[in-house]
Amino acid sequence: MMQSDEFYMARALELAALGRFTTAPNPNVGCVIVRDGEIVGEGYHQRAGEPHAEVHALRMAGDKARGGTAYVTLEPCSHHGRTPPCAQALVNAGISRVVAAMQDPNPQVAGRGLYKLREAGIEVSHGVLMQEAEALNKGFFKLMRTGFPYIQLKMAASVDGKTALANGKSQWITSKAARQDVQQFRAQAGAILSTSATVLADDPGLTVRYDDFPAALQAAYPQETVRQPVRIITDSRQRVTAQHRVTQLPGDCWLARTQSQPDEWQGSVEEIILPENGTGVDLVLLMMQLGKRGINTVWTECGSHLAGALLKAGLADEIVLYLAPKILGSGAQDLFTLPPLTHLRDAPEFRIDDVTQVGPDIRLRLTPVY
Amino acid sequence: MMQSDEFYMARALELAALGRFTTAPNPNVGCVIVRDGEIVGEGYHQRAGEPHAEVHALRMAGDKARGGTAYVTLEPCSHHGRTPPCAQALVNAGISRVVAAMQDPNPQVAGRGLYKLREAGIEVSHGVLMQEAEALNKGFFKLMRTGFPYIQLKMAASVDGKTALANGKSQWITSKAARQDVQQFRAQAGAILSTSATVLADDPGLTVRYDDFPAALQAAYPQETVRQPVRIITDSRQRVTAQHRVTQLPGDCWLARTQSQPDEWQGSVEEIILPENGTGVDLVLLMMQLGKRGINTVWTECGSHLAGALLKAGLADEIVLYLAPKILGSGAQDLFTLPPLTHLRDAPEFRIDDVTQVGPDIRLRLTPVY
Repeated sequence: MMQSDEFYMARALELAALGRFTTAPNPNVGCVIVRDGEIVGEGYHQRAGEPHAEVHALRMAGDKARGGTAYVTLEPCSHHGRTPPCAQALVNAGISRVVAAMQDPNPQVAGRGLYKLREAGIEVSHGVLMQEAEALNKGFFKLMRTGFPYIQLKMAASVDGKTALANGKSQWITSKAARQDVQQFRAQAGAILSTSATVLADDPGLTVRYDDFPAALQAAYPQETVRQPVRIITDSRQRVTAQHRVTQLPGDCWLARTQSQPDEWQGSVEEIILPENGTGVDLVLLMMQLGKRGINTVWTECGSHLAGALLKAGLADEIVLYLAPKILGSGAQDLFTLPPLTHLRDAPEFRIDDVTQVGPDIRLRLTPVY
Repeated sequence: MMQSDEFYMARALELAALGRFTTAPNPNVGCVIVRDGEIVGEGYHQRAGEPHAEVHALRMAGDKARGGTAYVTLEPCSHHGRTPPCAQALVNAGISRVVAAMQDPNPQVAGRGLYKLREAGIEVSHGVLMQEAEALNKGFFKLMRTGFPYIQLKMAASVDGKTALANGKSQWITSKAARQDVQQFRAQAGAILSTSATVLADDPGLTVRYDDFPAALQAAYPQETVRQPVRIITDSRQRVTAQHRVTQLPGDCWLARTQSQPDEWQGSVEEIILPENGTGVDLVLLMMQLGKRGINTVWTECGSHLAGALLKAGLADEIVLYLAPKILGSGAQDLFTLPPLTHLRDAPEFRIDDVTQVGPDIRLRLTPVY
């Protein structure tokens, strides 16, 4: 039975999402090839350097691709990167129609892929389920358009907005379920950002704890396929040492510092030297650096100072806020350190995009309203 | 078609809920009379002093009640109150089976209604949709069982748990939709509790603003049917005067004070004299007084001090927390003034019973976990 373009695109988006733990710094892309209403090929991009979604789908379709329609969640590439251009592959396979969810904002593509297809006589359209496709690669698109990564701020508090008791006790306010939920966000990020204050206080590993993935996810993603995001620590006073776990665990660790202070690092540690800006390293320059290094998405887990500073600098693209049904009261520690406001209208405003129950807690996803 | 007991009881509960703005201090009760699978009578209690649900349903059923089954959301009364006992009315009408959702905890009834029915040869059962029936009359049941009203604490804050800026500005953190939502809670309560601090700061009316009811609700409840709950103000320093709106508007206003200070009251104002207890009037004694006066449900709208005091005294049965997607930051004012905690395990814990989007905000309903 013939289905609508949206139907096949929804399937392509589903396929694309399968790459969410593995494609960074590349975007998630899915492709479905349809002939006479039948899906004859499916594919998704799995890992940078490996074939693109279109190639997988074309391989599966084989001869059946001829005269078919290709649904792709992102404009096919037109340039020779680590793999040959997909637009050419679609032409070669005799595809007669290409439906793209959206154009690729990557300046190396940016319409040229669709142009190449059209030039080859292929019927081309785009804009099908565009919003969903945008949502799939927020980090990649933001980086391509602005040079800055997509910055997520994870916070956890009691329902009265407290992150720790006055005496600093904070383990654990939110539930095990919430802490497990965090692992999936970590695993999708290009980098996990925290501060030397957090490292000195808790000595966290800031790695993806694969054991905390739900069983269904573990079944779909063998441990060896899950990347460890880069661990980035703001450390304006050079306090992180080779004794801290973030510098020892597998994967890269970048220390954002105001001056170099080498140590006998056991792991893969690199210093990023940045100017001081008031209360710490210049966060805007840090993010630009991370963008240049191909980090699409930064998942931030920090205290109220960096959280407030990211908000104040307008750098936070999303707040993922876990609220535990507890009340710690007025003396306890606050979520965001911000300078006092004079007018309510000056308070940062957000939109609640999602509310999900996570064990006994709830998770809010908030995006800024400008 | 014959349906299950649960089916008819669900309908009786639906009917009962129609009385939610009007029956106080009586409970909401619904009744459905079924013969040969057909609903022949329906009724619900509308107003104290007026007929009970069973009487309305029997009137509608007329002769068809004979041999039928009566579904009631609460055990039929057995005593002569302002109306004759419903158990007798059911017997007189020739009902052959009575299904009650639950026994009436009112010591004047407490099983005697069901006993009377059984004595008269009627088949009796209870416990059908009992939880739902419990939820319908939390205030009435708590008062009957404990002598204390059911105490709801309404709070509104930014997602970082702040109720006002450091300079006190708080109008409006939550949305118009949230403020309208509050009106329906007010309208269901026996009393609205606030503090002299709130009265002195904002001079609120603390009445039910009927205009803020959604149109569908206005259509179902003409303005004259909606009660104005008693307004109760804790006023340990006798600061509320005849100039304040709470003392002037239609309906009763009770001032909970440590000593009497009469004034030229324009409205119906009464003083309740209570001992001082640390930081204000003794809240436990106040609540016992309110219970004695037949207040089932107290809807509290106050600042962080009374909120903290209610929590600390273990008096809050439910917190209705509106969170607006704004961030006010660390300098702003807190939700709950509580003494500092030493251990996280000492923090009051809750269960999230409901999360609802209300305009741009969310509403959490939290009940204490002991």
